[in-house]
Amino acid sequence: MRDAEELKRYIRDVPDFPSPGILFRDITPLLADGPAWQRAVEHVGAAVRSLGAEKVAGIEARGLIIGAAVAAHLGLGFVPIRKPGKLPRATRSVAYDLEYGRDALEIHSDASGTGERFVIVDDVLATGGTAAAAAQLVGELGAQVSGLVVLIELRFLAGRDRLGGLPVEAVLGY
Amino acid sequence: MRDAEELKRYIRDVPDFPSPGILFRDITPLLADGPAWQRAVEHVGAAVRSLGAEKVAGIEARGLIIGAAVAAHLGLGFVPIRKPGKLPRATRSVAYDLEYGRDALEIHSDASGTGERFVIVDDVLATGGTAAAAAQLVGELGAQVSGLVVLIELRFLAGRDRLGGLPVEAVLGY
Repeated sequence: MRDAEELKRYIRDVPDFPSPGILFRDITPLLADGPAWQRAVEHVGAAVRSLGAEKVAGIEARGLIIGAAVAAHLGLGFVPIRKPGKLPRATRSVAYDLEYGRDALEIHSDASGTGERFVIVDDVLATGGTAAAAAQLVGELGAQVSGLVVLIELRFLAGRDRLGGLPVEAVLGY
Repeated sequence: MRDAEELKRYIRDVPDFPSPGILFRDITPLLADGPAWQRAVEHVGAAVRSLGAEKVAGIEARGLIIGAAVAAHLGLGFVPIRKPGKLPRATRSVAYDLEYGRDALEIHSDASGTGERFVIVDDVLATGGTAAAAAQLVGELGAQVSGLVVLIELRFLAGRDRLGGLPVEAVLGY
């Protein structure tokens, strides 16, 4: 694998999205470039494997994109963590504060056997609120949360400090 | 590749979701099984390749899961087609009727060069309203829509008849 840092030229900055004062890191140019997208999946996949994942969970919406691709790449099962009302069967739910507002996440109650090792995948680690909620959900299933892998970590927001010592791997840092 | 029909045992029927009278085909058990999920990506990928795709577009939310994984598998770029307000840059938008209500989809205006061959991916082809809207969006970019690939076609709803002769490949049919 070539150096991950090269992937930064496919990340586009969008000021004031989704609300004023937020600098949004837009990964759509990376997704749109076949070799870059494949390389990103390899890099995230290597981190997911290094954490000993048996299953991959991805957080709606961009964590679904990355997590599902990485799971297929590694031959692992994938569990979607979604916004309220989207999953068709019985769910567990957790509400949380995020950078711009309040939100909730859900997971299917039967998404894991006890003790299975999950790695959670998302596009960006910002303040850590979303990731903490996802880790709580997976833990409530009786699964083991082995770590979090993100494509992009916004280091200045210190999100990993809110995750109670959960191992975090980031492919790119800002 | 083994026979795709085997994948049907990972599709779960959920009656009355998201609204009364709808029989929802839940693909989460398929996603959660590593070998089955990998096999599904290979089957969808083979269909996408057979249609001559240069780029893959996926429709929010489950089309993002499948389309992004298939694009990475094939080494192709991926373009998300999303619900309103989710894409950070200038978009094209189209409103459409769907099986249960009315909705809209958006695509980044700069998501394609002229004439690029797109294949659109989604989980389910039902009445065809969503797929027709997605094909319209991609076409408005000046790209060529080479076809639609779905994991599941609900044949009794005859969605492909609403797609103006667009080539449609389905891995599984009901």
